[in-house]
Amino acid sequence: MSTPLRLGIAGLGTVGVGVVRIVQRHAALLETRTGRRVTISAVSARTRDKDRGVRLGDYAWEDDPVALAVRDDVDVFVELMGGSDGPAKAATEAAIRAGKHVVTANKAMLAIHGQELAEAAENKGVSLRFEAAVAGGIPVIKALTEGLAGNEISRVMGVMNGTCNYILTRMQDAGLDYQTVFAEADALGYLEADPTLDVGGIDAGHKLAILAAIAFGTRVDFSGLHIEGIERITIEDIEQAADMGYRIKLLGVAQKTGRGLEARMTPCLVPDTSPLGQLKGGTNMVVLEGDSVDQIVLRGPGAGEGPTASAVMADVLDIARGNTVSVFGIPADQLAAPEPAAASAPAAFYVRMSLIDKPGVLAKIATVLGDAGVSIDRMRQYGHTDPHAPVLIVTHKTARDALDRAIEAMEGTGVLASHPVAIRIEDV
Amino acid sequence: MSTPLRLGIAGLGTVGVGVVRIVQRHAALLETRTGRRVTISAVSARTRDKDRGVRLGDYAWEDDPVALAVRDDVDVFVELMGGSDGPAKAATEAAIRAGKHVVTANKAMLAIHGQELAEAAENKGVSLRFEAAVAGGIPVIKALTEGLAGNEISRVMGVMNGTCNYILTRMQDAGLDYQTVFAEADALGYLEADPTLDVGGIDAGHKLAILAAIAFGTRVDFSGLHIEGIERITIEDIEQAADMGYRIKLLGVAQKTGRGLEARMTPCLVPDTSPLGQLKGGTNMVVLEGDSVDQIVLRGPGAGEGPTASAVMADVLDIARGNTVSVFGIPADQLAAPEPAAASAPAAFYVRMSLIDKPGVLAKIATVLGDAGVSIDRMRQYGHTDPHAPVLIVTHKTARDALDRAIEAMEGTGVLASHPVAIRIEDV
Repeated sequence: MSTPLRLGIAGLGTVGVGVVRIVQRHAALLETRTGRRVTISAVSARTRDKDRGVRLGDYAWEDDPVALAVRDDVDVFVELMGGSDGPAKAATEAAIRAGKHVVTANKAMLAIHGQELAEAAENKGVSLRFEAAVAGGIPVIKALTEGLAGNEISRVMGVMNGTCNYILTRMQDAGLDYQTVFAEADALGYLEADPTLDVGGIDAGHKLAILAAIAFGTRVDFSGLHIEGIERITIEDIEQAADMGYRIKLLGVAQKTGRGLEARMTPCLVPDTSPLGQLKGGTNMVVLEGDSVDQIVLRGPGAGEGPTASAVMADVLDIARGNTVSVFGIPADQLAAPEPAAASAPAAFYVRMSLIDKPGVLAKIATVLGDAGVSIDRMRQYGHTDPHAPVLIVTHKTARDALDRAIEAMEGTGVLASHPVAIRIEDV
Repeated sequence: MSTPLRLGIAGLGTVGVGVVRIVQRHAALLETRTGRRVTISAVSARTRDKDRGVRLGDYAWEDDPVALAVRDDVDVFVELMGGSDGPAKAATEAAIRAGKHVVTANKAMLAIHGQELAEAAENKGVSLRFEAAVAGGIPVIKALTEGLAGNEISRVMGVMNGTCNYILTRMQDAGLDYQTVFAEADALGYLEADPTLDVGGIDAGHKLAILAAIAFGTRVDFSGLHIEGIERITIEDIEQAADMGYRIKLLGVAQKTGRGLEARMTPCLVPDTSPLGQLKGGTNMVVLEGDSVDQIVLRGPGAGEGPTASAVMADVLDIARGNTVSVFGIPADQLAAPEPAAASAPAAFYVRMSLIDKPGVLAKIATVLGDAGVSIDRMRQYGHTDPHAPVLIVTHKTARDALDRAIEAMEGTGVLASHPVAIRIEDV
């Protein structure tokens, strides 16, 4: 019989505990599937004395995750502490230096330091895997790196922050404004300690940066991402977008343009009948498009103990089976330098305006748009009781800078009651 | 530099040509991703002199696929001929005996002979892979075998025959009857030479048998499947199911019951708002449920040159990377004997009846159902001009045999104008 694969787990929050549970509950099943026993040698967390609802007494305890990472009886360092730097990075680096495989769920660390960690792991000949870092339980890294390995990838899209999708769908379903639903989500414990990570699009942006690197064979480039959060999405936008047949999603999109890689995590409108438009609550969805496969859509839980631990175990079991793949799909030293696109691809836009209700104002808006080369697909003016008329426009496909010029010119006409809202409509 | 991985491709229909195209178009990309060049040594097909729109002159030609399979310059035998027996099986067996890896898209061969082929391959230490055999371009075998390897799987479901889903959604969208849409599909070339393979549920059943074996660690057992086709689905059923908030799908379901494995490919009702209910046209969808991951949904093209070739290449590239996994997820000699469940799990049912329009008939039906222990969730009687009253019932969860007893008793009451239609409503 072959030797067991021995884990050292740093971080015993929900995901760490979930991993321990799977290893304990499915010992026989995992051995049958991989041909090796999977065991836990040691664990580490900030607080030792805490009932985590799981038996830990059989495992050695390390206060210091770096000490855990380099233990002789650890083959795979499982990093579940989080944080782009600090102990997570130090322990990951130490593990790699000591010739240990690393499995991590740490999207921030990979989005910021993915390149240097990948190079270190590949130089040392160890695996560095992170299925759990992107879209929770959905095996999307595997789908992209292996399942679609015969494709040139043309576009990757995803709704990858469950909190944001919960807030947006709850606003829509209950007709509540952003502040109210944000407070609800906070009370339910759905928000990170720093909620900007969620609602500001940072967390989802980390995930997109990782996917984009794999999809397009470029070094992970979080700083090249264009990120906007959902904080300024109003219930009016949600309701009026719905009236036009759209849903608003915090949508990540990465695609090659003629001039560089466009990668953005921003609110977008998608058709309400599309799989992305149908996605509700905390569920995640990733859309992968390739030259042969056309389009694959993956849907599943984006967070939580079980789903995230499931993804961690997928990586562990690949290592147990002896299966390897370059960290980002191709050798790290062959990843191309990032080349962020200067401009996003043309798109249709939803533009919401509040106009001073006087004769001729709509004509002024239409003229300004025409002058900027932006043509109108649909326009709606809503009934109103206050002196300002809500007006919605859906444009034909246009460059974003043309639209921005038009909006700037509108500001000069004196017919706007407030700054217009423009949201991209993504072709999905 | 490592040696190239050399393919021998038997079968040059759409999928075979698609594989050739990918190998030619993406030679550099594939080498970067796997560290090995992927080349084609030889090809084989029934007809040599035929313009297939792709350059084949560089490859040796074999009339006999068995001769191709055992060539010295072939490392991987790519079987794309189809057919459960005959040349496909002979060549696959010959390849394995000669120590070649095998990649196949042949669901029928695997559903019928999967166990013996898996044992032969594992005894010989070669890979036998078949991502393309199930759900076309969707990397579902990989998701199940590797991505969810940390899970005990509780249920697998899928819409895996694009032709059937096309027919059912076309009937619904256009309000056409089955015969009309069947004729349309035939004229469009969507049907197999023997259309029963599609509309009779056989093809989808082959795929479900393969998924069930992997999901539950049992020998593939096509004969243990309960299969019903879509031939008897009427436009009335589709419209009345829609009226109750459901769509009709040819849905495969495999799940453990307390007493054996339930595996069936039958028309089912699913909620129209569910991902399965939303699925239109030829697209496939597979739903995987596990104890940790909860539910993953995979959606994508179920057929066609590009998608199927993409799946074939995923297997080829795993072999190029040196990655292996047991054919059905665990070693073939450890797969459990199939134990088909005697009865399906209880479910709600849709029952459509045509009643003779006289006082008291509804009461008789309700009494008969109550006597059989079947309770009614919703009942609708529709307006009508002919002497027969269309009546729809949605039951609460009930055992199928209780419902069958009730239907038998109904036949004895003399109030039925025709045999009732009962379709399972699947919880999705």
